[in-house]
Amino acid sequence: MSSWQRTHNCGELRETHIGSTVTLNGWVHTYRDHGSFVFIDLRDRYGLTQIVFEPERGSELFTLAQSIRSEWVLSVTGTVANRLPGKEKLELPTGKIELKVESLEVLNKCPTPPFEINEFVGTELANEDLRLKYRFLDLRRQTLQRILRMRHTLNKTIHHVLDASDFIEVETPILGKSSPEGARDYLVPSRVFPGEWYALPQSPQLYKQLLMVSGYDKYYQIARCLRDEDLRADRQPEFTQLDMEMSFVEMDDIFRVIENLTVEIFQNCLGISIPTPFPRMPYSEAMSKYGSDKPDLRYGLEIVDLGDIVESSDFKVFKDTIAAGKKVRGINAKGAATVFSNTELKEKGALPELVKQFGAKGLAWLKVESDKFTGSIEKFFSAEVQTQLRQRLNAEPGDLLLMVADSEDVVCNALGNLRIHLANRLGLVDPTKPIYKIHWVVDFPSFLWDDEEKRWVANHHPFTAPKDEDLPYLESDPGRVHAKAYDLVMNGYEVGGGSIRIHNPEVQSRVFQVLGMDQANAEKRFGFLLDALKHGAPPHGGIALGLDRWIMLLAGTTNIRDVIAFPKNQRARDLMTGAPGTVDRKQLKELGL
Amino acid sequence: MSSWQRTHNCGELRETHIGSTVTLNGWVHTYRDHGSFVFIDLRDRYGLTQIVFEPERGSELFTLAQSIRSEWVLSVTGTVANRLPGKEKLELPTGKIELKVESLEVLNKCPTPPFEINEFVGTELANEDLRLKYRFLDLRRQTLQRILRMRHTLNKTIHHVLDASDFIEVETPILGKSSPEGARDYLVPSRVFPGEWYALPQSPQLYKQLLMVSGYDKYYQIARCLRDEDLRADRQPEFTQLDMEMSFVEMDDIFRVIENLTVEIFQNCLGISIPTPFPRMPYSEAMSKYGSDKPDLRYGLEIVDLGDIVESSDFKVFKDTIAAGKKVRGINAKGAATVFSNTELKEKGALPELVKQFGAKGLAWLKVESDKFTGSIEKFFSAEVQTQLRQRLNAEPGDLLLMVADSEDVVCNALGNLRIHLANRLGLVDPTKPIYKIHWVVDFPSFLWDDEEKRWVANHHPFTAPKDEDLPYLESDPGRVHAKAYDLVMNGYEVGGGSIRIHNPEVQSRVFQVLGMDQANAEKRFGFLLDALKHGAPPHGGIALGLDRWIMLLAGTTNIRDVIAFPKNQRARDLMTGAPGTVDRKQLKELGL
Repeated sequence: MSSWQRTHNCGELRETHIGSTVTLNGWVHTYRDHGSFVFIDLRDRYGLTQIVFEPERGSELFTLAQSIRSEWVLSVTGTVANRLPGKEKLELPTGKIELKVESLEVLNKCPTPPFEINEFVGTELANEDLRLKYRFLDLRRQTLQRILRMRHTLNKTIHHVLDASDFIEVETPILGKSSPEGARDYLVPSRVFPGEWYALPQSPQLYKQLLMVSGYDKYYQIARCLRDEDLRADRQPEFTQLDMEMSFVEMDDIFRVIENLTVEIFQNCLGISIPTPFPRMPYSEAMSKYGSDKPDLRYGLEIVDLGDIVESSDFKVFKDTIAAGKKVRGINAKGAATVFSNTELKEKGALPELVKQFGAKGLAWLKVESDKFTGSIEKFFSAEVQTQLRQRLNAEPGDLLLMVADSEDVVCNALGNLRIHLANRLGLVDPTKPIYKIHWVVDFPSFLWDDEEKRWVANHHPFTAPKDEDLPYLESDPGRVHAKAYDLVMNGYEVGGGSIRIHNPEVQSRVFQVLGMDQANAEKRFGFLLDALKHGAPPHGGIALGLDRWIMLLAGTTNIRDVIAFPKNQRARDLMTGAPGTVDRKQLKELGL
Repeated sequence: MSSWQRTHNCGELRETHIGSTVTLNGWVHTYRDHGSFVFIDLRDRYGLTQIVFEPERGSELFTLAQSIRSEWVLSVTGTVANRLPGKEKLELPTGKIELKVESLEVLNKCPTPPFEINEFVGTELANEDLRLKYRFLDLRRQTLQRILRMRHTLNKTIHHVLDASDFIEVETPILGKSSPEGARDYLVPSRVFPGEWYALPQSPQLYKQLLMVSGYDKYYQIARCLRDEDLRADRQPEFTQLDMEMSFVEMDDIFRVIENLTVEIFQNCLGISIPTPFPRMPYSEAMSKYGSDKPDLRYGLEIVDLGDIVESSDFKVFKDTIAAGKKVRGINAKGAATVFSNTELKEKGALPELVKQFGAKGLAWLKVESDKFTGSIEKFFSAEVQTQLRQRLNAEPGDLLLMVADSEDVVCNALGNLRIHLANRLGLVDPTKPIYKIHWVVDFPSFLWDDEEKRWVANHHPFTAPKDEDLPYLESDPGRVHAKAYDLVMNGYEVGGGSIRIHNPEVQSRVFQVLGMDQANAEKRFGFLLDALKHGAPPHGGIALGLDRWIMLLAGTTNIRDVIAFPKNQRARDLMTGAPGTVDRKQLKELGL
């Protein structure tokens, strides 16, 4: 052991160490020169320890101490002592002691950092582009260290729980074949076969199904996936998913594994108990009640159908909508009548403009008083209709009723997004008191009608199994067939999705027919998988969890760059290690480019 | 739970289950129709269970049973019974029982497989290209299942041991900047910045050093790395390494972590105890004694320097070699005099031809008899020289002495490879009784002289720290400077390598000067890392273990395709999922290509 090497880390000294001689290594977190004494909070991953330089220890040491600056790397040896009464810092685990330094070695210096690393000094973080430019400094921040440690705990929990349940982790290739499905692939030119390209994996879907055919029974992988899509606040081109697949299972088996895993994750990462089993909500209920296939259940604001009531009103827009077979639905924003001014509600107001973004033509509104409604359309509603509305929407004085009339899709989309906006505006989600509402969405339709192409398309992928009881309608009424597909939803975000796959070749071929694919066409697109499925495929199914999203929710951040050590950033791209650059012409030539 | 779902797996039924009604799911491993009974070994990942169809259970069931073929997927329900005395198969954990089938559901069929999956039936495996074409079938083989399970155990052990030692697993990017160093990068065109390219990582070296600068203290990752090199039997373009880095450490700290990890890996994967600490061998000793920087210590056959003896012989070749400052060294192949015929030893014989492949001009040989030598050159050696040779090489009757005279490099290379060949030929390594010799190689030279470019080049990379005691010679005698670098060697294979990095900017700049790089040049090549190292870098170092090689050694295979679920194979490339293919012109156009 070299003389400068630590005997302890900066988070572990306690009163029991008083009197011991120890060596610490770490960074200068804060520096205070009181003239007679120099106080430094020395920092490492494990914590902070106050170290003290006293003039009586020798002027050479003290002069050196006075030259120290923020973020220098020190090795200090000294005696552990108790802090003076009143100088204790009880919020720190090391807050009762300090180290009286007897010798100092400056292991490395640091120029004045371009921004403050101690996030509690300033009120606001430095500009993010600057922090990304100096990512190696920003990563010293306690928040990022905490999140990346939590990410480690998340991964560790996954390995532990799935190993204990007999899952095998299998690595699948990074370089594969490009597939015509899904998002845009990242491509890699092949040197050995000029003119041909590898694709980076968007998910290990194909491989995990092959592993089931091969009898691996329970597979998982914490897999890196890539999609060549533009960056967004909550999206990076590289993302990580827990990918898993099981054989001889039905949905319940997969739900059980994921529910157990979720319980352990919340316990290990946050010390929170999550109740199981998770509620299961049919897709149709999610859409009609919450206007979303990933409803946030931390608050109510449910969407209510009003069609049967308003069709007997005098409001022509509503009557015509119902007559055309479309929908009129509304939300009761409890107690919101005084929160929103009439200006915000009137045409060109903020709320109508919001629903218009999602395709609605307008927003009808009523403020509820004890004996009447006021608003845009109350005059069209008879007393009878008003009473029915009051009852249906559970309306009380002070409430604000908001209604949209349009096609089912538009009504869901507009009111679903309005609902989220209302929850934020009304403060229904307290960011300082995080709660977690986790549930399954099930019974998705297997097929969607593509109006442009005039044909049925797969809602998930063509290997998703239809529910057994819907098989009779596969040809006669594809729209009524539900899939053995499921999403896991947490606080309004989709955090997982999967399905039971088709293992029966006859069902597979019927599904291809619904999708307008003949066998030759299907072979061309999915040949390798189809060939495998023919050779003794077991019933199987799986799921993928988006781990970046999970850690965002667990850590309480909405910025995906907070949960990835080295994120991509197009603005500061030249300064990041994860950016593209120019390459030697010679190498491109070798690739035939 | 669906009616066809298993209550037990195929590996768990025992005598204690006799009389129970159970359901098994699995594949038809072997099928025997005895006319009166149908016997099937049903297989899943967990084992084999014999199931029996008896005609008295009903003719419909029996007829269906007779239609079953190999590799069909079945669900069978029945009663567990003991096997008839004499019919027990004690080598199977389930060998005392069988399942008398009462109902059968064929979950899936399978055409006759293109090759036998039961590897114990035939004497030889089918052609590898065919097996790779049907990888999903080959992966059913017990050997591959065992190896992939062992690979899971290896990964699990790594996660467990390193987590318990406070390491944090951090994911680093797949898409990064191309670096001028190292092997050929795989390139990925950027759509957002046309004309620019990402590179896939050859290792996370840069990122792990940044994480140390950021204070993460102990980092690890089971990282996928890629190099665009041609395939070989023991090399794939995608490989997996355990990558780790620690702060405030010296070599001993890293050795301790890896030694502890190795102990656990051998315990968990093979149930073998490995003694620690591992021996440390200086690079110079490895080269002079074994002619290799990764010597196989499972056998002796040490190389012995003979220069001082043979310079006084009458053999002109040897005398001239020594006079020119070169080397004469030899190996005593104990007891090999009768193993190798004179024909194999004479000019154009197999052994001389072997050393010529490695640059030697020839091979001198002597067979040892009780009172004399016979061979190519005995006539040039006086009795005195013969006695000295006998002593130096510990030569006894029946031994074969083999000598090469040339430059140090050529002698090492030729005798090092001859040594491996001799060990194989003499059967010094018994493949049925695996032993594991693990040791460190240390004290590598920091710099090598590049005779073509007439300059010093870095033996590892320019960030490798020189040994403290050698710093004074950095400018005056770079060739004498040793590095804080180390390789981990197992049974003649390099299974890991790393170094302590330079954290001191002054030392770094002196090293760049030795390498003929001025600061501007260095900034251009390594700018981001240098910038980080300036901002308070702690002393740090790390190592990377090649996990594909580890699992090959643990599993006792020399074929890398045995340890990767979906390997690349250029011959059968069209049939593998991991092969390149053509892509849409439109997509290439979007990339500016």
